[in-house]
Amino acid sequence: MSLKFNYNVPTKIVFGKGSLDKLAKLKLPGKKALIVTGGTSTTRLGYIDRIKAHLDAREIGYEVYSKVQPNPTNVNVDEGAEIIKNTGCDFIIGIGGGSSIDSAKAMSMVASNEGKCWDFFTGVSKSKNKAIPVVAIPTTAGTGTEADQWFVITNETLNQKIGWGGDKFFPALSIVDPDLMMSVPPKYTAYQGFDAMFHSIEGYIAKTANPVTDLYALKAIELIGSNLPEAVKNGGNEDARAAVAMASTLSGMVEAISSTTSEHAMEHSLSAFHPELIHGAGLIMISVAYHSHFAPAVPERYIAMAKALGNENASDPMDFVSALKKLIDDCGVSDLKMSDFGIKESDFDELAENAMATGFSMLKADRAALSKEDIIKIYSESYK
Amino acid sequence: MSLKFNYNVPTKIVFGKGSLDKLAKLKLPGKKALIVTGGTSTTRLGYIDRIKAHLDAREIGYEVYSKVQPNPTNVNVDEGAEIIKNTGCDFIIGIGGGSSIDSAKAMSMVASNEGKCWDFFTGVSKSKNKAIPVVAIPTTAGTGTEADQWFVITNETLNQKIGWGGDKFFPALSIVDPDLMMSVPPKYTAYQGFDAMFHSIEGYIAKTANPVTDLYALKAIELIGSNLPEAVKNGGNEDARAAVAMASTLSGMVEAISSTTSEHAMEHSLSAFHPELIHGAGLIMISVAYHSHFAPAVPERYIAMAKALGNENASDPMDFVSALKKLIDDCGVSDLKMSDFGIKESDFDELAENAMATGFSMLKADRAALSKEDIIKIYSESYK
Repeated sequence: MSLKFNYNVPTKIVFGKGSLDKLAKLKLPGKKALIVTGGTSTTRLGYIDRIKAHLDAREIGYEVYSKVQPNPTNVNVDEGAEIIKNTGCDFIIGIGGGSSIDSAKAMSMVASNEGKCWDFFTGVSKSKNKAIPVVAIPTTAGTGTEADQWFVITNETLNQKIGWGGDKFFPALSIVDPDLMMSVPPKYTAYQGFDAMFHSIEGYIAKTANPVTDLYALKAIELIGSNLPEAVKNGGNEDARAAVAMASTLSGMVEAISSTTSEHAMEHSLSAFHPELIHGAGLIMISVAYHSHFAPAVPERYIAMAKALGNENASDPMDFVSALKKLIDDCGVSDLKMSDFGIKESDFDELAENAMATGFSMLKADRAALSKEDIIKIYSESYK
Repeated sequence: MSLKFNYNVPTKIVFGKGSLDKLAKLKLPGKKALIVTGGTSTTRLGYIDRIKAHLDAREIGYEVYSKVQPNPTNVNVDEGAEIIKNTGCDFIIGIGGGSSIDSAKAMSMVASNEGKCWDFFTGVSKSKNKAIPVVAIPTTAGTGTEADQWFVITNETLNQKIGWGGDKFFPALSIVDPDLMMSVPPKYTAYQGFDAMFHSIEGYIAKTANPVTDLYALKAIELIGSNLPEAVKNGGNEDARAAVAMASTLSGMVEAISSTTSEHAMEHSLSAFHPELIHGAGLIMISVAYHSHFAPAVPERYIAMAKALGNENASDPMDFVSALKKLIDDCGVSDLKMSDFGIKESDFDELAENAMATGFSMLKADRAALSKEDIIKIYSESYK
């Protein structure tokens, strides 16, 4: 074990059942909030009203931006940033799935500097100033964005999806209340839970892993392995929901310090060309072939992950792949097919080119170099 | 496992051999530093000159305060705060053992507000303002202050030693370079290493433990168990030094979020009355009787700690106590005697009263209530 690492997760995390109502007393980073949300389930389920009530009681002002799309766009970000600038909001509350929280982070960047959202990604504008603080309140357990410095924004005109970030975009405060996740449907619970687990799996096998992220990653893998099937089958099980939520937050911390690997790059390519494909589902589809390929590269780490998934006597790196397959089965998502999303085998060359080009930094985190041929092989083995 | 927790460790930690020289490029939180140190070994070993050279090269100004005492005093703090105010320093570098870093934190409090150091502890002055940022560079592996929000200051006139802190006193940046610890003598390496381990042990058995601190604590206990004897016997072993340093930093994170227990309160009482007794040595003296008392209260946690200390087949909470005894032996510190420090059995009543009064918050973290009689019994069983 090489004992060198950097650690930086400055977000204050308040985790647990009922923690949304800690908004009644928690120190908040400003006097007027822009509440950012997708505005459908968060409104319908009363979460937005509960937040407003807490802010009202504390005489903290707010505006609401509720037009965030599932793949949040630069237009969403610019609209929100405009409200912040015009109405004097001095902090942002992102509530919802990753899209709302990522938008809140991007709005922080745009509103605290000069320029439109996309100008920052092209280098025309720079994020020079102190960021407007963000409070993150996730209502799904998957992205981990509540505990990292990253955000992903889509430009629909250019058909580009870009990941961005920086230390100043860690949320100042994240309230992770598993109660808010109770009504996520089974299929999405599975997709999101696997997304969280792959953040930890990739962060654990990446070159960028360190002794602290290793602790988080193995714990998160263990929590997902022993709780995701139950959370999928019985969404009302509070303990299972809380365990999966904790795994997601820990996995965010893994992403914050370590890195995702080429698995994420390969999936981003799939869902960039096929936007109806949900990220977590895309990861599940390619995961068995992907990890069968990488297991020999870091055998002892795959054995440790197999143990985390409950195979205490694991001795072969492929034991992890067997445990992964079983978990996919147990969560009822083994029937996912690329062909159902319009992906063709003849696309693989282009998809591989795209994964290598746009996922460059993730491929750099791999412990064994992945060639274009390797990527095509993994896509092909995953195809059905 | 109750899945409720708060997490807040905003310090950026740069850990590893040679990391002191990252001062050449690391983002620093100001333009002029007050360098705070005890001024003996840190100067003799050239650490202060290396820091100055890096700051010179970057045209970052500095002043030096090098009069910090082993038990840092309010006078030290007021002198440093005065320099900060008079010379326009906008950040503080604390380099040395816990005393230098704790002093830097306390100077931050005093220099960013109105009042003298002791006025804050008595409530006459309040810490209202943003704290002046602190960079912590530990040269010992023990206190964990590089990763927590606490500091301990002594008033020699009043004969009081007070622990204080708050979230704004987390260091902004901590550089943990095990190279700086290579020359710590064996005896002190042992005392400090055990201090670190007891932060984790107590944080793990405390009511305040949470699933994240549990990860840190068990890892730190494992690292100390498998590396401290070697670091004591062969101080030149870089791997052993690094492992112990990492355990100390992780244990600081445990202290930051969980809490120490009555073990620390009982030791503070011993060393408050007998200042020549080194804190880590005091902890070692009482630890076997203390943990024999507490093991039945949280048996499964003691079994987990026994496993972390290398007894994979542990099944009885007292297996931990056996492993602890062995570690004390292996580190050559089993001959510590209270009587050598002038402690008398007839003092125990008064010492117990003191521990209960001044260590009130630590006793609250115990999972089983400790009576005055219990404390006297533990002192008595530890006496030789």
